[in-house]
Amino acid sequence: MKQYRILIDSPDEKGLVYKISKIFFEHDLNIISNNEFVDKENDKFFMRSVVAGTINPLRLEEKIAHILSKNASVHVIEPKKKNIALLATKESHALGDILIRYEAGELDANIVAVISNYDLLEPLVSKFDIPYITVSHVNLDRESHEREVIKALDSFGDLDYIVLAKYMRILTPNFVECYADKIINIHHSFLPAFIGANPYKQAFERGVKIIGATAHFVNNNLDEGPIIAQEIIPIDHAYSWRDMQRSGRDVEKIVLSRALKLALEDRIFVHANKTVIF
Amino acid sequence: MKQYRILIDSPDEKGLVYKISKIFFEHDLNIISNNEFVDKENDKFFMRSVVAGTINPLRLEEKIAHILSKNASVHVIEPKKKNIALLATKESHALGDILIRYEAGELDANIVAVISNYDLLEPLVSKFDIPYITVSHVNLDRESHEREVIKALDSFGDLDYIVLAKYMRILTPNFVECYADKIINIHHSFLPAFIGANPYKQAFERGVKIIGATAHFVNNNLDEGPIIAQEIIPIDHAYSWRDMQRSGRDVEKIVLSRALKLALEDRIFVHANKTVIF
Amino acid sequence: MKQYRILIDSPDEKGLVYKISKIFFEHDLNIISNNEFVDKENDKFFMRSVVAGTINPLRLEEKIAHILSKNASVHVIEPKKKNIALLATKESHALGDILIRYEAGELDANIVAVISNYDLLEPLVSKFDIPYITVSHVNLDRESHEREVIKALDSFGDLDYIVLAKYMRILTPNFVECYADKIINIHHSFLPAFIGANPYKQAFERGVKIIGATAHFVNNNLDEGPIIAQEIIPIDHAYSWRDMQRSGRDVEKIVLSRALKLALEDRIFVHANKTVIF
Amino acid sequence: MKQYRILIDSPDEKGLVYKISKIFFEHDLNIISNNEFVDKENDKFFMRSVVAGTINPLRLEEKIAHILSKNASVHVIEPKKKNIALLATKESHALGDILIRYEAGELDANIVAVISNYDLLEPLVSKFDIPYITVSHVNLDRESHEREVIKALDSFGDLDYIVLAKYMRILTPNFVECYADKIINIHHSFLPAFIGANPYKQAFERGVKIIGATAHFVNNNLDEGPIIAQEIIPIDHAYSWRDMQRSGRDVEKIVLSRALKLALEDRIFVHANKTVIF
Repeated sequence: MKQYRILIDSPDEKGLVYKISKIFFEHDLNIISNNEFVDKENDKFFMRSVVAGTINPLRLEEKIAHILSKNASVHVIEPKKKNIALLATKESHALGDILIRYEAGELDANIVAVISNYDLLEPLVSKFDIPYITVSHVNLDRESHEREVIKALDSFGDLDYIVLAKYMRILTPNFVECYADKIINIHHSFLPAFIGANPYKQAFERGVKIIGATAHFVNNNLDEGPIIAQEIIPIDHAYSWRDMQRSGRDVEKIVLSRALKLALEDRIFVHANKTVIF
Repeated sequence: MKQYRILIDSPDEKGLVYKISKIFFEHDLNIISNNEFVDKENDKFFMRSVVAGTINPLRLEEKIAHILSKNASVHVIEPKKKNIALLATKESHALGDILIRYEAGELDANIVAVISNYDLLEPLVSKFDIPYITVSHVNLDRESHEREVIKALDSFGDLDYIVLAKYMRILTPNFVECYADKIINIHHSFLPAFIGANPYKQAFERGVKIIGATAHFVNNNLDEGPIIAQEIIPIDHAYSWRDMQRSGRDVEKIVLSRALKLALEDRIFVHANKTVIF
Repeated sequence: MKQYRILIDSPDEKGLVYKISKIFFEHDLNIISNNEFVDKENDKFFMRSVVAGTINPLRLEEKIAHILSKNASVHVIEPKKKNIALLATKESHALGDILIRYEAGELDANIVAVISNYDLLEPLVSKFDIPYITVSHVNLDRESHEREVIKALDSFGDLDYIVLAKYMRILTPNFVECYADKIINIHHSFLPAFIGANPYKQAFERGVKIIGATAHFVNNNLDEGPIIAQEIIPIDHAYSWRDMQRSGRDVEKIVLSRALKLALEDRIFVHANKTVIF
Repeated sequence: MKQYRILIDSPDEKGLVYKISKIFFEHDLNIISNNEFVDKENDKFFMRSVVAGTINPLRLEEKIAHILSKNASVHVIEPKKKNIALLATKESHALGDILIRYEAGELDANIVAVISNYDLLEPLVSKFDIPYITVSHVNLDRESHEREVIKALDSFGDLDYIVLAKYMRILTPNFVECYADKIINIHHSFLPAFIGANPYKQAFERGVKIIGATAHFVNNNLDEGPIIAQEIIPIDHAYSWRDMQRSGRDVEKIVLSRALKLALEDRIFVHANKTVIF
């Protein structure tokens, strides 16, 4: 018996759980885990079920779609390795954390490539037998550079997620549209504090007692996409901004890896610039 | 339309969600929130639904019980203020935190009385127009003292919960049996570390870098009942055990109040010496 | 033998610790605890010593000042209860937390009065035999209202600190100047996120996964004064902004009380819109 | 001008700071940072200073020793890369975290070798050009196996620290004595909870709401050595012990790396089975 992940988001209406679980019952599916949430403000119903049984996923999808309103969406997913690409710049901590998990077989993913605007991380990445592609931004305007990056990404076929593991370039709306809700970024502050450049310097100037990191999907407004995960660490007056940066790295990498895991397990719904996470 | 809380725990079997949500649907109930959990190890199914509609709670309870196995239990609860008694000894922080919430109307409870083996906290409690009963343990053996406490408690009729707000007396099995799964205690360590007396001194001796507090239901094995909530704070070498005690108080009171809130909202299942909390 | 707190901030220069500890030694003072910090960016030296011995505090202050540069400041403080006033509006949690500590003798302070623009909290405050003064803002412009508040505060003589325990009025520069570095506020977000009104609603809209609270000294720029303490709690998509507000209260009160304790123990230096805390 | 770390622990006596800072002053040393702590219970004084200047470290050490009691110890350390060996078994997360930091030049250390009782981690370690030595325990009694490990360690000359990065073998007193206060272990619970084998299973059985990890120096009593660092994460009833193990790995690796960093920066004093950390 196989396991399937069933993701439903739908306008809320009475009887949804009944109607959906009826279909599960009729297909002799065993519910392994089941999570529901109603967003009252937007009258939206979210559900993620893991079921075990013998089914045709597309057929089941149709059956469920049939009893839902037209504005609903339903996905019956057979868990398999997702294809992801990593973008990085110069820092190795977030990238390295993902590589070590990958090597340990912890990630349900194929890392098809690491792309960077510098060649600094090539020695690290090549240890793991993953293609490393340097797409230098030197002498290129933003659009031209991104075209090169997109070309490189496209050469690996369909990608499920693009992970910005401390990729220090601002993406254009065009790039973001190509991979809507597929780009996961780590920002080195507890957003919305310290958006933009050099958040640790900003945090130092402000004299905060807590610093943090935020993993989020990227949308057209820099640092304003749907938040997936956040974590913080306490600091004190003795921290220079370099100390904050150093200490912050541990939070950054853990939060990014946690967000990636949630994505790979199909646990995230995006709606109204927020996430619902089961 | 009224809201009801429906609590079900049952041996796990296929189709439970379907069968239960069918009854909700037939009674025209709107599901406000719904949580389920299957304890695979013990093959137990737990469910807590908040529904809105017009029903006879007892009838609904019967209907649901009818489709469940004999070993299942179901409760349809109409939310109302629960009756609680507080036991304390000398320290006021946990007790005071509950009193301030009570005064603010934050607690869905009637505090019928505060009982203590000392009269020290009477000035505080009497400010809030709550009966304060001193049941001194002096010259009484444990059993005799507890008989007096039980007599005092009994005089207030049926109690939903007894909250040990830093009540520094060990309870006998007899006392505990009188109020099974109804006694909520706060222990001043992150259990199971430092069971028994003087946990802060033990923590100081051991040189830990984190201290904590644990709210749990009381059973016959001291400090070994089902854990409801835990919280910690970081400390360092500069803390004396008195400093730990002082800092620990904030954790203790917050954790106890949080556990009490969970209990008052019927969010806790107890099973196999653990809690399932929705 | 008495204990004294010695606070020094000075332009940094070689030999400061030596010169200062020499004076301690010559006065036969025993160092109970000693903390130093050099702010390299501003070339400032901060030191807080607790010493035990028999001295004339003013004389010792002069002696130390004599070896420091003219821009340095030194305070030799004999610990005693500080006079504080509390300002509140309608919510009781932060105020109540302080009152319970006060009643327990935990605060090294006299609460001279609670002033509010509403009379709602009078029943609570009067339980603790503390004067409650309602200064309604109705029909008064901001300046006139503040004049009334200042008049009320002045009637209690010199105040060491004014604690804004969820006082929901914006203070004018004039008010702030009257009590520079003496006003401690609790803001219900992890500043600088969500400055201004309704931070929980802002946090809800933004879809953050962490909420927090910040205790800070008040200066002329709303929510931009030197930060004393911050704390956070994790939340998820299921929290309405009301849920955030409710859960946030525990963080708010603990952080405000912690900041107040630091102030009462003379542990805070303010410099360059930041705090150094020993 | 070079920087030096000066570590002093001494029976407490009046005038220590004065006498020591006088020597600093006479040697024209600039204090970069300075931390002191008096352990009142044991009447011990601890001090760690970072100073900049031009000195002969051994001479300075003698000078300071001269003014201290015979039971005192003083170390003047010129910061340089320390030699460390890593011991591991099968899991790669803690080891991998150290390797990535090492590759990034973040660790002030030479990793002379990784020794394991299995060959599983060789592919990972060999990527980083670090010798990997498999010392199988199969068919060897504990003492014989340890003799082989010690022989392997000895072949790399003097070692500053031995890091047990999830080395799942119990060490004998003989082994521990060879490297007193030099062995850093990560235990996968917030000690002293769940000492011994399978702490996550123990945590699962107990139904805790928080799990953690502890980095500590190893002494002869298993899991009872001086604690360096601890960290926790909240969990809930939905976690199987496998889930706890998976989530716990992130805490384990961060805590171990943090402890290693403290050791490499000479920030840890060990006394009376506790640590003082500056």
